[in-house]
Amino acid sequence: MIKVVAKFEVESDRIDEFKQIASELIDKTRQEEGNISYELYQNNKNKQILTFIEEWENQKALETHMKTNHFRTALPKFQKISTAEPEINTYTKVK
Amino acid sequence: MIKVVAKFEVESDRIDEFKQIASELIDKTRQEEGNISYELYQNNKNKQILTFIEEWENQKALETHMKTNHFRTALPKFQKISTAEPEINTYTKVK
Repeated sequence: MIKVVAKFEVESDRIDEFKQIASELIDKTRQEEGNISYELYQNNKNKQILTFIEEWENQKALETHMKTNHFRTALPKFQKISTAEPEINTYTKVK
Repeated sequence: MIKVVAKFEVESDRIDEFKQIASELIDKTRQEEGNISYELYQNNKNKQILTFIEEWENQKALETHMKTNHFRTALPKFQKISTAEPEINTYTKVK
């Protein structure tokens, strides 16, 4: 199992727009083979921080996801309304 | 529901020690009322990055956790073998 934490900092007046793009991406991603969970969270202290927490069965499923149209369309939209590049960390479970 | 992502960067020769302290903390935390999940992950690219991903029923449960003996004992041990202060983000689910 692979865990992904993908953290974006969004421009303050584009937060709703980010959530709308994310909503469609989430719906499509959850239908992908090998996706276990795909959720979006908003930071309690800084509302501009929006973070995807994802679970994938294996590396191949994650790589396939990154080649899908819905991912490739959403990512540049996210980047355009973000204040910096996203911070993406990929993890293996210890316990 | 509250999600917590608590990211540590551990000294390269203290990673096993970090995992051992974390293992005991995880066992005890999972028995707490209001804890939904409490898991430790290791970064795939940088093995020095160890991140707890936690789920709590509410803010009160999280605050109670931070007052427990097992948490208060483990935290300074983690800090002592880390290269910097941990980065802790608390989130609310969007979708």
